[in-house]
Amino acid sequence: MATTDLTSIARTAPTSSAPRVSTMAEGLVGSEILKIAAEIRALIKGGRTVCNLTVGDFDPKQFPIPDALKKAIVDAYDANETNYPPSNGMPELRDALPRFYERELGLRYPLESFLVASGARPVIYGIYRAVVDPGDTVVYPVPSWNNNHYVHMLGAKGVTVPCGPESRFLPSKSELLATLPTARLVCLNSPLNPTGTAMARDQLLGVCEAICAENAKRASRGEKPVYLMYDHIYWMLTAKGTEHYTPPQLVPEMAKYTIFVDGISKAFAATGVRVGWAVGPTDVIDRMSAIIGHVGAWAPRAEQIATARLLDDTSAIKTYVDAMHAGLGSRLNALHEAFQSMKSSGLPVDSLSPEGAIYLTVRIAPFGKKTPSGAELKTNEDVRRYVLEAAGVGIVPFQAFGVPGDDGWFRLSVGAVSEREIRDAMPRLAEALKAL
Amino acid sequence: MATTDLTSIARTAPTSSAPRVSTMAEGLVGSEILKIAAEIRALIKGGRTVCNLTVGDFDPKQFPIPDALKKAIVDAYDANETNYPPSNGMPELRDALPRFYERELGLRYPLESFLVASGARPVIYGIYRAVVDPGDTVVYPVPSWNNNHYVHMLGAKGVTVPCGPESRFLPSKSELLATLPTARLVCLNSPLNPTGTAMARDQLLGVCEAICAENAKRASRGEKPVYLMYDHIYWMLTAKGTEHYTPPQLVPEMAKYTIFVDGISKAFAATGVRVGWAVGPTDVIDRMSAIIGHVGAWAPRAEQIATARLLDDTSAIKTYVDAMHAGLGSRLNALHEAFQSMKSSGLPVDSLSPEGAIYLTVRIAPFGKKTPSGAELKTNEDVRRYVLEAAGVGIVPFQAFGVPGDDGWFRLSVGAVSEREIRDAMPRLAEALKAL
Repeated sequence: MATTDLTSIARTAPTSSAPRVSTMAEGLVGSEILKIAAEIRALIKGGRTVCNLTVGDFDPKQFPIPDALKKAIVDAYDANETNYPPSNGMPELRDALPRFYERELGLRYPLESFLVASGARPVIYGIYRAVVDPGDTVVYPVPSWNNNHYVHMLGAKGVTVPCGPESRFLPSKSELLATLPTARLVCLNSPLNPTGTAMARDQLLGVCEAICAENAKRASRGEKPVYLMYDHIYWMLTAKGTEHYTPPQLVPEMAKYTIFVDGISKAFAATGVRVGWAVGPTDVIDRMSAIIGHVGAWAPRAEQIATARLLDDTSAIKTYVDAMHAGLGSRLNALHEAFQSMKSSGLPVDSLSPEGAIYLTVRIAPFGKKTPSGAELKTNEDVRRYVLEAAGVGIVPFQAFGVPGDDGWFRLSVGAVSEREIRDAMPRLAEALKAL
Repeated sequence: MATTDLTSIARTAPTSSAPRVSTMAEGLVGSEILKIAAEIRALIKGGRTVCNLTVGDFDPKQFPIPDALKKAIVDAYDANETNYPPSNGMPELRDALPRFYERELGLRYPLESFLVASGARPVIYGIYRAVVDPGDTVVYPVPSWNNNHYVHMLGAKGVTVPCGPESRFLPSKSELLATLPTARLVCLNSPLNPTGTAMARDQLLGVCEAICAENAKRASRGEKPVYLMYDHIYWMLTAKGTEHYTPPQLVPEMAKYTIFVDGISKAFAATGVRVGWAVGPTDVIDRMSAIIGHVGAWAPRAEQIATARLLDDTSAIKTYVDAMHAGLGSRLNALHEAFQSMKSSGLPVDSLSPEGAIYLTVRIAPFGKKTPSGAELKTNEDVRRYVLEAAGVGIVPFQAFGVPGDDGWFRLSVGAVSEREIRDAMPRLAEALKAL
């Protein structure tokens, strides 16, 4: 066949003054974390040893998916489960999910409250599109993950609620209350990406009571309610000694307003397997089903069937989750102890004790100090670069999660490193900080 | 654990006068075809024999995926390929795609022109979001698939170009020309779902010339171009004797304005495997990558790696595609011949000879006649119901593809039936039509 060479023609750098894409697309920002990750991959390729604590993912060598899940996927392919799943999810999985939620979370939901999608992101996007109109107000605490991007994609108005270390970076009723009268959607995530901290019972209860009170007022005026997106994708990775709470467990009325984000991606280290789900009030779930159906963000059929089998296999889940807790706990604790030890020795660092997810919040604040080459460290970005270059430790500043200030807070993620790598890297970090 | 029963609370029928969801979500319509499919499933469950020609899917018993693909998926899972793929696709697959496009279609595109997603639908949605702003005009011929829904989701203005049997339901330059000055996006699909007909060379060339002429004018005024979404998801299923053409092959300049929709879903009967891709100008693909990244409509990792291996396996592809052509051809020809034979015997039916995809366009127009029970057949829906109930043949009226009139045109899809079922069903259909 004759070849038409389009190599140059298709390379359409936006040289003209007129943008070639939609206003939304023009203004959409890609993931900041992925940019840092690409930088680290380049360093490693160049032969550097880097303890990569940046990406919220798992290295399968450290954290493989459950054998039962893998085997069930292969079985499903062997049974030729290759055609379209129903757009709201395979019946097996939709049947298994209510059982799983009742058994593990004590929440009895009807079947129509569940909707399957290709991971947690499509569920988040589906929630935004189902309840938010352009110009509507979306309230979210910072630090938090990607809400700024979803707000942009919807043409919504984002209202951020800054949360600091005194509240373990999580919001309470008092901070949200003023935002509720104009809010269409409040976004919470617990355990929280990026901080690895979890909503306490009273904290969550207060938020639920405030939302129910606001919605009672709205109902009396015939107005649309405010919804709560409750992203608890990390709930199975809540640390020992910390309890995970859900809004309807504390205030059943919240089942009318809460839409859960969940999936196998984090609990079962299955980020590439692409199975997530939403749980919520049936009318909102029905609309999300139509939206996600047209977007086509469907989980693959074999993986859905396999997930159904896994969720019913209480013994496989227990064994796996115990191992996950042990593996994540040892890594997070090693980091936390190293930071507390550096703090004790007078270095300008701190860390919050881990409560869940795969993250540790640390502070590295050598601001005003000079590097051995004479450069003054002024910003989080300066610190990030120095720590990467001098100590081979990859970290993500809270700016990537919407925090504006340069106050030295960073997310460390442990899913892609061994405990050995952490123990090797922490002395390098201490040396690099002492060298300032 | 104590159980909180939310069964009633979460069942939120929209009883109140105030809608609970976004305006977009409130107005979004689900798939008409899926509703018909659910009706047929219920009939079959009730013991009826139904030749189900409704859903654009495959029965794996009739059309399994390639063994090489299945094996490669299992291999990838065995190699623990379970973590996040890069958001624009696995490097293996993005490397294989340019080779595949050059080898099979004669199109040499740069690597940055390719973007992987979880099937063709997310690619379509990504194109709409990347180039269409609310209020922009999207031009699409009818019958066509789902453009009405995407137009609604974008808040765009849809302009339909009605196409009839005289042009095999496909548009030409003359019909599109008047719409171009205000259009942001023109949507073409060839071979076409629902008709199974394909754009002829001159037809497509005319459209490309018109788009390039329009964009030359716009460039001189510093305005955004009009884009062509060229959905050729069925291109490997073009019938013997029909040729598949692409816009940049006929007019290389079109590589600046054409965004292809493609994937393994139809060519390899892999609708549930969820691997699709976009090909287009690099600036638009870059924005689509950011959009699809945030939406999270990512193809599963193992399936991406397996697809890369399949696309490089020319021998496995040839064997498989030959078998697909034979299997689809025999079914489509059996249907076409049966309709032509009924037509010859004076029954009010017709059919268009198949040119590609898995569809046959037929006309069943017994309008004004009365059923044995005395009901007059007035609409396509009357005919659809009668044919299903009296002959056990499930078909989809062109209304499901945006055609407003009741003129007796229907889509028959052959991916989920055997040739035997077709040969058994056609005499039943002839009898049912004779009984009118």
